[in-house]
Amino acid sequence: MDRSNIQDPPEYEDQEQSDPLKKGWMIGSPPPADKIIKFIHEDNKFPQMRWSLANIRQLVPTAQISHGLGPISNLPQRPHDISQVQWVDAEGNTKTFMDMMNLTYTDGLMVLHKGHVVYEKYFGVMNPTKPHLAMSVTKSFVGTLGAILVHEGKIDDTKQVIHYVPELARTAYGDATVRQVLDMTISVKYSEDYSDENAEVWNYSQSAGSMPRLPDYDGPETLYEFLLTLRKDKEHQHDERFWYKTVNTEILAWIIRRVTQKPLAVYLSERIWQRMGAADDAYFMVDSIGTESAGGGFNTCLHDLARFGEVMRNRGFFNGQQVIPAEVVDDIKFNGDKKKFEPAGYHTLEGWSYRNMWWVGEDAVGEFEARGIHGQRIHVNTKAEMTIVRYASHPYASNIINDPPTQAAYRALANAIIFDIIIESIL
Amino acid sequence: MDRSNIQDPPEYEDQEQSDPLKKGWMIGSPPPADKIIKFIHEDNKFPQMRWSLANIRQLVPTAQISHGLGPISNLPQRPHDISQVQWVDAEGNTKTFMDMMNLTYTDGLMVLHKGHVVYEKYFGVMNPTKPHLAMSVTKSFVGTLGAILVHEGKIDDTKQVIHYVPELARTAYGDATVRQVLDMTISVKYSEDYSDENAEVWNYSQSAGSMPRLPDYDGPETLYEFLLTLRKDKEHQHDERFWYKTVNTEILAWIIRRVTQKPLAVYLSERIWQRMGAADDAYFMVDSIGTESAGGGFNTCLHDLARFGEVMRNRGFFNGQQVIPAEVVDDIKFNGDKKKFEPAGYHTLEGWSYRNMWWVGEDAVGEFEARGIHGQRIHVNTKAEMTIVRYASHPYASNIINDPPTQAAYRALANAIIFDIIIESIL
Repeated sequence: MDRSNIQDPPEYEDQEQSDPLKKGWMIGSPPPADKIIKFIHEDNKFPQMRWSLANIRQLVPTAQISHGLGPISNLPQRPHDISQVQWVDAEGNTKTFMDMMNLTYTDGLMVLHKGHVVYEKYFGVMNPTKPHLAMSVTKSFVGTLGAILVHEGKIDDTKQVIHYVPELARTAYGDATVRQVLDMTISVKYSEDYSDENAEVWNYSQSAGSMPRLPDYDGPETLYEFLLTLRKDKEHQHDERFWYKTVNTEILAWIIRRVTQKPLAVYLSERIWQRMGAADDAYFMVDSIGTESAGGGFNTCLHDLARFGEVMRNRGFFNGQQVIPAEVVDDIKFNGDKKKFEPAGYHTLEGWSYRNMWWVGEDAVGEFEARGIHGQRIHVNTKAEMTIVRYASHPYASNIINDPPTQAAYRALANAIIFDIIIESIL
Repeated sequence: MDRSNIQDPPEYEDQEQSDPLKKGWMIGSPPPADKIIKFIHEDNKFPQMRWSLANIRQLVPTAQISHGLGPISNLPQRPHDISQVQWVDAEGNTKTFMDMMNLTYTDGLMVLHKGHVVYEKYFGVMNPTKPHLAMSVTKSFVGTLGAILVHEGKIDDTKQVIHYVPELARTAYGDATVRQVLDMTISVKYSEDYSDENAEVWNYSQSAGSMPRLPDYDGPETLYEFLLTLRKDKEHQHDERFWYKTVNTEILAWIIRRVTQKPLAVYLSERIWQRMGAADDAYFMVDSIGTESAGGGFNTCLHDLARFGEVMRNRGFFNGQQVIPAEVVDDIKFNGDKKKFEPAGYHTLEGWSYRNMWWVGEDAVGEFEARGIHGQRIHVNTKAEMTIVRYASHPYASNIINDPPTQAAYRALANAIIFDIIIESIL
């Protein structure tokens, strides 16, 4: 969701005031009536969201991504309190890494350096074994699976989407290639403007089951049915530029299911989750017929998100094996198209690009990210040999709000590591 | 559910014919319309149930029972093919252990002897990392938690239920003790006769979310609200005899939550699941406000059900520690009241008793069981040092159908072990 043009967010309770534990939500047998959070529209927003994003499975049906029977991979610990690393904001005020975590409504954050867990911190109802909704970080997992299948020759990314899913012939994807889907250069009418009652996001969310159905809902019953309604934006051609549209990931997931002949949850388990030695099951939100929300419905524990970040930082090698091909990571890091990205106008991401559903940043440090709109993020800084994973529940779905403190704090930490400011023990 | 008086079950497809994999259910992207299973009444029964019981979380909201961060306990393997162990049925026909698994629509079965996994077998859509609905096996977990709290002095089982949950004053439980709840000697009007539209089970299932709500449902919104509607059976007094009523476990769960100040899922995770070194998360079905279905909503992988069986067989000692007090297991094994059990008229369980929500069988071999109505079972034979755990989805909810082959086959296996008929390697 590109909401980076929103400049004046309303005032919200801060990190501490909105702490779901302090709010007393869902505590008691039964909880007091005014402390109950249900899967209804009123509870689907901030501040209730601070509880919900860590308890999605209690609200909706979900599909298991099994961590399998193999051993859990080790995440060696080398603790160092980096919470006081400093950065300077736009007004010239000195802030700390801890300030950044508070400003971004962080629910859980882990910093790894050279594969060691340097720092790990949880807020509110989050804890090490509690999955959190990854939202659009989900896309980077699905994009990686797609890129793996391309690398393995099981998907030809130059082929038409309808070569794999003929049902999409009459949709926006009728004349698109798989590569265009993977890099989101698809011209499709898909609005996420919730103030517009005709915006496609309403039918998307209600058919996918990620939003409670309104009493008068008469849209598509399932995610598949919804995808068949997508039409081309006649003003544009595919491949003109990058347009960030969640539905592209749902289309990619359909292709992946068709090619692998497996549910997305099963393929993700087999191809990544088990190989990297995940410690816990993850899960997808599903629609009424079990279809995974590939655009934003993935939930993981923070430590497993960190494992995947390390897989990516290490060019696919982790847990004693090549979990994913190195070429897939290289393709993400080096083959994004900055010219196609630029017109999207992401003020906080100047010079970035988008490849296989990853956000690719500064070349000089080998920076790339998986990004969720409420602050969820996998951040890799190759040069600093640093991975930062974060779950968050920021009230405002905006890069403009989330990026400045995040980028400044992450950069300060990377510099502290690169320039040896942080004590040797973590180097 | 005591349906042991049902003598003439209708004909159903057999184990192989009803194999959910062979049925092709939920395969495809999307699955064909006639192969889709949803959370609707039509799909809530056999044979669709054979898929559903292993995929509950895809159908309804659930609560996580975390296996925690600790190491997974070892289940050492000593494989031996016991599938051809023989038993003789009521007609004098010789059958095998494999016949029993087919006759009982087994989805997964594991035999342990002296702590070694001797035999492990899966059918249909089940596999080692896929949780299955335990149904009334759930009750034995909750009863064990209750008995632990009694042993620790945190619950006084001689006290009134309303000492812990005053809200229940005007219900059937208003003059009952905790012990009566633990042993199900409560006189309560609670019918599970689905052919009676006024049976309490309708409101129970629909308020708890374990059954889809009928369009005209106007009963209690939540499980708690439902429990407040329970009234005494005026024809009887508490403590007269054993009456098997699922709602007693829901009352016990309420007491446990009140005393521990934790959700049942969290307490079960901390008190048993993590200590025994479970390999996987388990989960509860929950109602619309997150209340766990304590009477039948627990789901586990088969190997973790086996771990719990071993905890019980070993008087609470497992994974290098006293997971639960030995006295709790002894209380279950030795303090059941056969006289109170007898009037319940379980033809296949003559001489048995019921204690802390466990079914206690033949004294001579130290037999006790957790029992689910579609064939789910934890079976401990102390003398044979044997634990058998089974998940199943028998079309017919009846002891009369399930018990004869099960009991004969389990006894044959125990005898083979006790009398050294099975090769020494497993002894």
